[in-house]
Amino acid sequence: MASPDQGEASPRRVSLPTGRLEAFSDGVFAIAITLLVLEIGVRPDWQGNPLGAVVDLWPEYLAYVVSFATIGAIWLGHSAVTHYLEYTDPYLTRLNLLLLLAVSFLPFPTSLLGEFLSSESGERVATTVLGLNLFLANVLLGVFWRSARGRGLVHPDADDEELTLVTRRLTPGLAGYVLFIGVGLFKPFVAVVGYFLLALALTVPRRRPRRARDARRFARNA
Amino acid sequence: MASPDQGEASPRRVSLPTGRLEAFSDGVFAIAITLLVLEIGVRPDWQGNPLGAVVDLWPEYLAYVVSFATIGAIWLGHSAVTHYLEYTDPYLTRLNLLLLLAVSFLPFPTSLLGEFLSSESGERVATTVLGLNLFLANVLLGVFWRSARGRGLVHPDADDEELTLVTRRLTPGLAGYVLFIGVGLFKPFVAVVGYFLLALALTVPRRRPRRARDARRFARNA
Amino acid sequence: MASPDQGEASPRRVSLPTGRLEAFSDGVFAIAITLLVLEIGVRPDWQGNPLGAVVDLWPEYLAYVVSFATIGAIWLGHSAVTHYLEYTDPYLTRLNLLLLLAVSFLPFPTSLLGEFLSSESGERVATTVLGLNLFLANVLLGVFWRSARGRGLVHPDADDEELTLVTRRLTPGLAGYVLFIGVGLFKPFVAVVGYFLLALALTVPRRRPRRARDARRFARNA
Amino acid sequence: MASPDQGEASPRRVSLPTGRLEAFSDGVFAIAITLLVLEIGVRPDWQGNPLGAVVDLWPEYLAYVVSFATIGAIWLGHSAVTHYLEYTDPYLTRLNLLLLLAVSFLPFPTSLLGEFLSSESGERVATTVLGLNLFLANVLLGVFWRSARGRGLVHPDADDEELTLVTRRLTPGLAGYVLFIGVGLFKPFVAVVGYFLLALALTVPRRRPRRARDARRFARNA
Repeated sequence: MASPDQGEASPRRVSLPTGRLEAFSDGVFAIAITLLVLEIGVRPDWQGNPLGAVVDLWPEYLAYVVSFATIGAIWLGHSAVTHYLEYTDPYLTRLNLLLLLAVSFLPFPTSLLGEFLSSESGERVATTVLGLNLFLANVLLGVFWRSARGRGLVHPDADDEELTLVTRRLTPGLAGYVLFIGVGLFKPFVAVVGYFLLALALTVPRRRPRRARDARRFARNA
Repeated sequence: MASPDQGEASPRRVSLPTGRLEAFSDGVFAIAITLLVLEIGVRPDWQGNPLGAVVDLWPEYLAYVVSFATIGAIWLGHSAVTHYLEYTDPYLTRLNLLLLLAVSFLPFPTSLLGEFLSSESGERVATTVLGLNLFLANVLLGVFWRSARGRGLVHPDADDEELTLVTRRLTPGLAGYVLFIGVGLFKPFVAVVGYFLLALALTVPRRRPRRARDARRFARNA
Repeated sequence: MASPDQGEASPRRVSLPTGRLEAFSDGVFAIAITLLVLEIGVRPDWQGNPLGAVVDLWPEYLAYVVSFATIGAIWLGHSAVTHYLEYTDPYLTRLNLLLLLAVSFLPFPTSLLGEFLSSESGERVATTVLGLNLFLANVLLGVFWRSARGRGLVHPDADDEELTLVTRRLTPGLAGYVLFIGVGLFKPFVAVVGYFLLALALTVPRRRPRRARDARRFARNA
Repeated sequence: MASPDQGEASPRRVSLPTGRLEAFSDGVFAIAITLLVLEIGVRPDWQGNPLGAVVDLWPEYLAYVVSFATIGAIWLGHSAVTHYLEYTDPYLTRLNLLLLLAVSFLPFPTSLLGEFLSSESGERVATTVLGLNLFLANVLLGVFWRSARGRGLVHPDADDEELTLVTRRLTPGLAGYVLFIGVGLFKPFVAVVGYFLLALALTVPRRRPRRARDARRFARNA
C-alpha cells in the first residue's frame, strides 16, 4: 500500500508500513459503530401502545447517538494520526490494539444505559461506566499520537505547526470527561449530554495546513 | 491510495484524499446490510408447525428485502458520488458520518416491522419509522452530493452532463418517500411495497458517460 | 485501485473499475461468515449437565461448518471471477448485490437448523430452506460469471482454457443441490452432509493456468 | 494491489497475489474481535443492585479480554506471515479459510465462559472448550506459516534469520496451551489466566530485522 522507498531509518528501528494497521482498525471502528444499533429494541410488553413503546426508547436513542458520535470522533482522530504516520512499529501496533479494545467495548455500556434507565441508581452506574469507557478510549488515542511522535514515526516533512494542531485537538476532551463522570454521579442525564458535546467538540475541524499542497504530498487519509 | 499530485487547490482549502473515507464507509454499508438478517427469527412457539412458522415470517422477509435494497441503492449512490470526488474535506467527512448514522440505524426499524406486525397500529408505527429513516438516509445522500459539488471537491475533468445525471439520479426518490410515508398511515403494506420500488428505482442505472474512456481517467469505483 | 489506462472500450459501454465492488463484497462475505457463530448458544436449561449441553449442540456445529464452508467456497469462486474481471458495469454491479443478498441471508437457515432439530418435520423444513438458499447463492454465482464473460468484462488477455476451467468449476454443484434438496425431504441429515460435501467440492482447486507468469500480469486476487 | 512483475515461478505452480486474502482475513479478524462484546450482558434480574450486576460480570470481562488478546495476537502473527508472503496459492488460501474458521468460532466459547460460571463443572467445560479452540487457532497459524515457507511462497529476498525468528515466535505457545488445558480440568480460573498470558507472550515483539531498510523493500503490513 505504502511505498516506503525513501526515509533514512536508524538500522535498529523496526519500521513497518501502516496499510494493514489502518485496514484492520477501519474494520473494527466500522463494526463497533454499526453494532450499536443492535442494542436498541422495544420491550416485549409493547402490545396496546406501539407508538409509546418506540418513544419510550429515547434513552436508548440518546445512548446510540452519543456512542456513534464518540466512535466517529475517535475514528476521525485516528485517521488524523495515521495521516501523519510514516511507519508503524511493533510497539505502536500493540498500542493500537489496546485502543481498539476500548473502542470495541463501547456497545456494552451503551446497552447498559438503555437497560438500566428504569432505576435511578442504575442510571448512575450506566453513565459512569460509559464515561469511564469514553475517557479510556480518548486517553489511549492521545497516547497513540504522542507515542507516534515520540518514537519518530511521523512523516519527517510534516509541518510542526500542523502536528501541534493535532496534539491540541486530541487533548481538551480529557478534562471534560473527568468533569462529566463526576457530574454523572448526581445528574446522569446531564453527563450523557456532556459526553455528546465532548464528542462533537472532538469532531470540530481545527484550522489546519495552510499550504494544502505540501500536506498532500504524503496524504493518505482523512 | 490516491496519488494527489496534480490539481491547483486554493491555499486555504484543506483537501484530503478519499481512500480512508471510502474504506470506512464500505465497512459500515457492508455491516449494516449483513446485520439485517439477525432480526429474522422464528417465534419460540413454532412447535407443531415449523413450516407455518417459517412462512409466517413473510413480513420480516419483506422488511429484510426492502432494507437490503435500500442500503444497496444508497451504497451505489455513495459509490457514484465518491467516483467523481477528487478530494474530501473535513466538512464532507463529517457529513459522511451523518449519512452513515442514518444507514446504520436501519436494522432497528427493520426489526420493528417484523415485531409489530401482529397489531394494526403497530404496523402503522413501524412503517412510518422505517419510511422516515429511509427518507433521511436519501436526503443526506443528496446533501452529500450537492455539498461535494458546491465545495468544488469533484474532479475538474468530470463532464458536466454526467454530473447532472448523478444529481438527477439522486433526486426523485424524495418526493416518493414523502408520498408513501403518508400512504403508510392508512395502508402500511402499500407503503412498504412503495419503499421497495423506490429503492429499485434508485438502483436503475441512468444513461451515463458517453465517453467511457474519459470517465475512466479518474475512475476509482462503481 | 486499478489503473484502467489501456483497453479499447466501445464508446457506449460504461465500464467501471472493480475496486469498490471487491471491497464491499469482501466485507459482506467476511461479516456473513463471522456472524454464523452468533446462532450457536446453549439452551437456558443446561444446569446440571454443562458437558451434555455443549455436546447436544452438534447439529448447530454441523450447520455452522456447512454454512462456513459454503460461504468460503462462494468467496473463493467470487474471487476467481473478479480475478479475471477487467471492469464491472452497472448491470454486473447490481447482479453482485443480488448474489450478496443470497449470501448474507445464510445465517437465518443456519440458525433454523439448530432451532428446529428437536422436531422431525422441523428438520425437514430447515434442511430444505438451507438447501434452497445454498442453491440460489450458487446459481447467482454462476450467472455472475457468465454475465461477466457475456458482457465482455473479462480481461482480453485471459487464456480461453483458464476461463473454461472457471466455468466448469462453478457449474457441477447445481445438480448436486437439486439432488440433496430432494433427499432432504426424507433424510434431512444426509442432505446436510451432502451440502457440506458440495461446498468442499467447490473449494477443490482445479488445475489452472499452465503459464503462471501470464496469469499474473493482470492478477489482483486469489 | 500487489504488482507481481518479478519472480521466477516454476511453470506448474499457481501463484496468486495476496491482496484479497489479506482484505478478507482482516475483515474476519476485525469482526470476530468486535463481536466478542455482544456476549456480555447483565442478567435480567439486576434490579435493586445495578452496580453488583455490573461487577458480577467479571468472568465475562475476563473471557472478553482473553479472547480479544488472543485474536489480536493471531492477527499480529497472521500479519507477520503475510508480510513475508510473496504470493499465495490455492492450498494456502484454503488453509487460511480453516484458520479463519477457528478464529471466528471464538465468540462461542467466550460466551460459554460467562454463561457457565455459576456451576463448577460448567466452568471446567467452558475453560476446556476455550482452550481447545485457542490451541487449534494457534496450531493452524503455525501450519499456515510452515506451509507458506515449505511451498516457496515467501519472498526470496527475505532474510533467513528473520524467517527463523517468525518461526520461533509462532511456536512456543502450543506447549503452553496443552499445559493449561490440563490445568483447567482442576483449576479453571488458573487456566484462563494462563491463556491470557500466552496471548500476551505471542504479542511480545521479537528482536527482528537488523537491516530495516532491506525489510522494507517488500514490506506491506505489520
